[in-house]
Amino acid sequence: MSVDVDGLVAEARAGRARAVARLISLVEDESPHLRAVAAALSPHVGRARVLGLTGPPGVGKSTSTSMLISAFRARDLRVGVLAIDPSSPFSGGALLGDRIRLHDHTTDPAVFIRSMATRGHLGGLATATPQALRVLDAAGFDVVLVETVGVGQSEVDIVSLADTTVVLLAPGMGDGIQAAKAGILEVADVFVVNKADRDGADQTVRDLRHMISLGRRETGPSWRQPIVRTVATTSQGADDLVSALDAHHDWLVAHGDLARRRATRARREVEAIAVRELRARLSGVGGGETLDRLATRVAAGELDPFTAADELIGEHRYQR
Amino acid sequence: MSVDVDGLVAEARAGRARAVARLISLVEDESPHLRAVAAALSPHVGRARVLGLTGPPGVGKSTSTSMLISAFRARDLRVGVLAIDPSSPFSGGALLGDRIRLHDHTTDPAVFIRSMATRGHLGGLATATPQALRVLDAAGFDVVLVETVGVGQSEVDIVSLADTTVVLLAPGMGDGIQAAKAGILEVADVFVVNKADRDGADQTVRDLRHMISLGRRETGPSWRQPIVRTVATTSQGADDLVSALDAHHDWLVAHGDLARRRATRARREVEAIAVRELRARLSGVGGGETLDRLATRVAAGELDPFTAADELIGEHRYQR
Repeated sequence: MSVDVDGLVAEARAGRARAVARLISLVEDESPHLRAVAAALSPHVGRARVLGLTGPPGVGKSTSTSMLISAFRARDLRVGVLAIDPSSPFSGGALLGDRIRLHDHTTDPAVFIRSMATRGHLGGLATATPQALRVLDAAGFDVVLVETVGVGQSEVDIVSLADTTVVLLAPGMGDGIQAAKAGILEVADVFVVNKADRDGADQTVRDLRHMISLGRRETGPSWRQPIVRTVATTSQGADDLVSALDAHHDWLVAHGDLARRRATRARREVEAIAVRELRARLSGVGGGETLDRLATRVAAGELDPFTAADELIGEHRYQR
Repeated sequence: MSVDVDGLVAEARAGRARAVARLISLVEDESPHLRAVAAALSPHVGRARVLGLTGPPGVGKSTSTSMLISAFRARDLRVGVLAIDPSSPFSGGALLGDRIRLHDHTTDPAVFIRSMATRGHLGGLATATPQALRVLDAAGFDVVLVETVGVGQSEVDIVSLADTTVVLLAPGMGDGIQAAKAGILEVADVFVVNKADRDGADQTVRDLRHMISLGRRETGPSWRQPIVRTVATTSQGADDLVSALDAHHDWLVAHGDLARRRATRARREVEAIAVRELRARLSGVGGGETLDRLATRVAAGELDPFTAADELIGEHRYQR
């Protein structure tokens, strides 16, 4: 099948949603055109602001995403959304309902929403998501929102590749905050206490503030993670949140951290692609047979797995 | 620091819990002795029956593990338990309380329980867990139970490395079952409906049975996944569960599938170690500088990430 990759990129940049969708499918499916697409996108990337949004289930992530879309649209910004559905065997169901809220925006040509679902390994998402992000960036979206359900570390890894990472919490999740403090502190640039009209919102803000004060480092100029209260269902606090996001963006630029974060994102991306390529060689033609032979010996207790791995690498001349 | 690895393995095989714990720490911490430990264990592995236990949060996994420990002890079998805590930023807290139930068994020298926790990447667990499993196997435990909280695909991957995988459900989680059917069908050898004294247990069993009938393949001899009802808090159904586990074990042996599963487990283990080694080389001394240089160019849009990955691999002579 022949695909006019350059034509698709030009169409996507001209604002045609179908071309954007097609390009994401090409990078998502690991089609033979993946590399051609990546090469064609490359000169056009680096302009979009990338926002990550995560938090425990039930906190109102999709509603908050929807609220943010409206807020950015009010400023006449084009918004792309990647909604990551890990399709865990045990968490797959509840998400579909939430996603419906996002459909409010589907008739707006300046909004593009894509649900990135995977059956099985998050590894697939970990490589497909950055490529999809590059598509939206190259297509000229001003803001790209990456939203994950945030049930596990892998999802947090994905979302923490953003320029600015927003962690959502809600009242009555105090125990979760206690348990999670280390992990959340590491990835959050902005905290949102959603459902702020409910009982316990003040306590959640206090808990968060305490947690932040404990985690603060004394060295170097450090960003003070703000806590924004929102009621996403009524868009209450939307402007405060956008202001906090802008403030963080300005801070990143002023401290040279935006370039640093983006270089880190590129570093992980390149590393992940290289590792996957090497993995494919190890278990591919030739490598697969060697691996089977070694695995049988390991299972029989004739060989330990580390020696087997050395042999596998050596046999395929992956030495330095 | 000098470690007498052979001495530790001999002590572990003589039933000393401290030596078992020390060996697991050595493989968990990626100590310089990791390879020596793996080599020393190798001749002694392959005897233990490995059971995996997973299911959604709140289903009673720790109570069920405790019930199974008692049932195996009543048959005079030695039992090792690896309780996997992914320490996700958002799911870390609730587990600790559950674990307390397992402490009923801590005074029994024929029972060894180890909580495998990781801050951050499940990748660490994915490599440490098989090694810890080898320690318990080599130490002569008749049964090794690997229990995970089962919130994500990665945890399911870990537990599905078992000879027999048990998936627990509970009444009133019908929506979860619907959503999860594909994922659960793939990994489960035995289903348990725990809390079977509660309303809705019959419905959960019916839903499961329907799901199993839809997923059944027509080709080849296939194992009929049994559904066992239990009330783990009172050990009701424990004997039925052990019988189902025995039946599956016998079936695996009769069909040559036990050896096949264990070879698959060894294959994944060797592959994971090899990939990690290659990853370390890519981002290690020399490789790290190349990667940084390439990443900066990718971030600047001068290079696409796939070409960068090719250069990274090429520069370090990982070619075939």
